[in-house]
Amino acid sequence: MPIIEMHLLEGRTVEQKRRAVAAITAAVTESLGVKPEQVRILITEHGPDNFSVAGKTAAERGAHP
Amino acid sequence: MPIIEMHLLEGRTVEQKRRAVAAITAAVTESLGVKPEQVRILITEHGPDNFSVAGKTAAERGAHP
Amino acid sequence: MPIIEMHLLEGRTVEQKRRAVAAITAAVTESLGVKPEQVRILITEHGPDNFSVAGKTAAERGAHP
Amino acid sequence: MPIIEMHLLEGRTVEQKRRAVAAITAAVTESLGVKPEQVRILITEHGPDNFSVAGKTAAERGAHP
Amino acid sequence: MPIIEMHLLEGRTVEQKRRAVAAITAAVTESLGVKPEQVRILITEHGPDNFSVAGKTAAERGAHP
Amino acid sequence: MPIIEMHLLEGRTVEQKRRAVAAITAAVTESLGVKPEQVRILITEHGPDNFSVAGKTAAERGAHP
Repeated sequence: MPIIEMHLLEGRTVEQKRRAVAAITAAVTESLGVKPEQVRILITEHGPDNFSVAGKTAAERGAHP
Repeated sequence: MPIIEMHLLEGRTVEQKRRAVAAITAAVTESLGVKPEQVRILITEHGPDNFSVAGKTAAERGAHP
Repeated sequence: MPIIEMHLLEGRTVEQKRRAVAAITAAVTESLGVKPEQVRILITEHGPDNFSVAGKTAAERGAHP
Repeated sequence: MPIIEMHLLEGRTVEQKRRAVAAITAAVTESLGVKPEQVRILITEHGPDNFSVAGKTAAERGAHP
Repeated sequence: MPIIEMHLLEGRTVEQKRRAVAAITAAVTESLGVKPEQVRILITEHGPDNFSVAGKTAAERGAHP
Repeated sequence: MPIIEMHLLEGRTVEQKRRAVAAITAAVTESLGVKPEQVRILITEHGPDNFSVAGKTAAERGAHP
């Protein structure tokens, strides 16, 4: 632990995801006092028809990642 | 909150998913007294080799969505 | 399937949760054409220190369920 | 119940996944005394850019499934 | 990886859970060819008001773990 | 989005969790270019009998948060 699951809308670049997992891991190790090796992050990407706010999907709302 | 994750077998249409998130959001706002804007739904779709009941995948059982 | 995980802030009554799972199940069976027996819902309740928006926990924001 | 979510790196064969869900289901029914029909397993596969240990993705580390 | 989340109804003994994680880990290492150290299992236990089948909670149905 | 689920061993202080969600939110907004209000974090804490590595629970291994 910690084990982190991050849900994102599809459309981030590989570079953005690499920066994100590096930055989240640093944030967690500093705030919780764990070693980097203990931090695992799973990313799940959801297409625009697979995420909704207020009953409308991202596709219906024209939302961007 | 509420944040809802819904796992489905692959194969629903976009229209079915739109009806589902609209109907679930209405069900939640009415039963729990929250505003629609507070309700987020994440859909994850699983292929027929990625879901099992009783140790048999949907593909092995010939299950349909 | 469908298998649904619902995350809530702590503080709902048993009666509210019963109404919610009944209503969500009805919403799903109607919109996706599945039988009620296929619909499973898992509720996880999070205390006010275990949910954040914009980097502030519900406790810090004084949020209510 | 039990409902099990298994996160894997992409790259397993269908045969490996079938063996895994059969073996896990047997392990659970024996250790917890439930019927096979009660055991549902959801597999989510993550690409090499969508899993990290110590802030490095599997792609950056050259990890294999 | 693999990272496994197991959802159970409350009421298992510590001994049952220890047997379950040992047996699942063995099942996964054998079927997928991974090392035991790579297998992490997270158990979440749900009270009888927090799990439903067919729109009825375990408490309403009088279900046992 | 992003919606983040963080699994921790029980035993962190409220202060640690507040620092963690603030730091993770900052990490995500900077790396992915989203607004803080879009970032939701759900923490689930697991007791020492509810997390295992290599088939041994944290309680069996004498692991600390």
